[in-house]
Amino acid sequence: MPLTPSPMELALDLARQAAAAGEAPVGAVVMEGDRVLAAEANRMRALGDPTAHAEMLAIRAALAERGTGRLDGCDLYVTLEPCAMCAGAIAHARLRRLYYGAEDMKAGAVDNGIRLFSQKTCHHAPEVISGIGEAASASLLRDFFAALR
Amino acid sequence: MPLTPSPMELALDLARQAAAAGEAPVGAVVMEGDRVLAAEANRMRALGDPTAHAEMLAIRAALAERGTGRLDGCDLYVTLEPCAMCAGAIAHARLRRLYYGAEDMKAGAVDNGIRLFSQKTCHHAPEVISGIGEAASASLLRDFFAALR
Repeated sequence: MPLTPSPMELALDLARQAAAAGEAPVGAVVMEGDRVLAAEANRMRALGDPTAHAEMLAIRAALAERGTGRLDGCDLYVTLEPCAMCAGAIAHARLRRLYYGAEDMKAGAVDNGIRLFSQKTCHHAPEVISGIGEAASASLLRDFFAALR
Repeated sequence: MPLTPSPMELALDLARQAAAAGEAPVGAVVMEGDRVLAAEANRMRALGDPTAHAEMLAIRAALAERGTGRLDGCDLYVTLEPCAMCAGAIAHARLRRLYYGAEDMKAGAVDNGIRLFSQKTCHHAPEVISGIGEAASASLLRDFFAALR
């Protein structure tokens, strides 16, 4: 039986909670098989830390939970295309798959910008599956930034 | 009167301490004028966290110490050229200057690889000064990895 909600639905819920807390709405979940290792929302504002992206927090929490020093065989679900920092962290943690929702034409570093995983200097590239939950994620971000203006 | 030791000497001392603890020898210091905001060594092994690079730890510690949510006007000294993850974090934190020691031809992302700060998608680029403490840093790294083999 499929996990209910799915990992991306869980990430989208976290993104909604982030928006309600005044944070840019991004959520991230790390799965090991059917087990949720970590589920985090963007907390840049709450932590006063511009590196506190949902993916960074989820990767660190998953590493702490797993205790093996890497996330090989695990998958990351995130509502927005990761930036260079987060893509670098994904490679360092050796995540197996990256599922992301909306593309980020400005700061994305997977299918936009530096396309980190396609660089020959990249020592580990996850399999990338994009577009899962894309419409919901993009609409959350659009509404959030429209309300700011 | 100049700070004794200089920020890069302090970073090199941290790198030496890292090596003694079995960590790849990299140290990083964040300065605000003459004040040391944070000084951290690589702790990937101690924390079981491949994202626990000296720069990431120093940037987070400096943000916590400063409390303004960014590091504009502050400078980062690190013994090794930052990777994509750390270069991304430097841009997010809006550090003013990056001083680094040895180049990293394999994983470096400043003057090698993706050259993040030269990309048009990079929203903030620090001034970069390289080669400070380069020989000492390179020799620490060489000795460490030679001892591993």
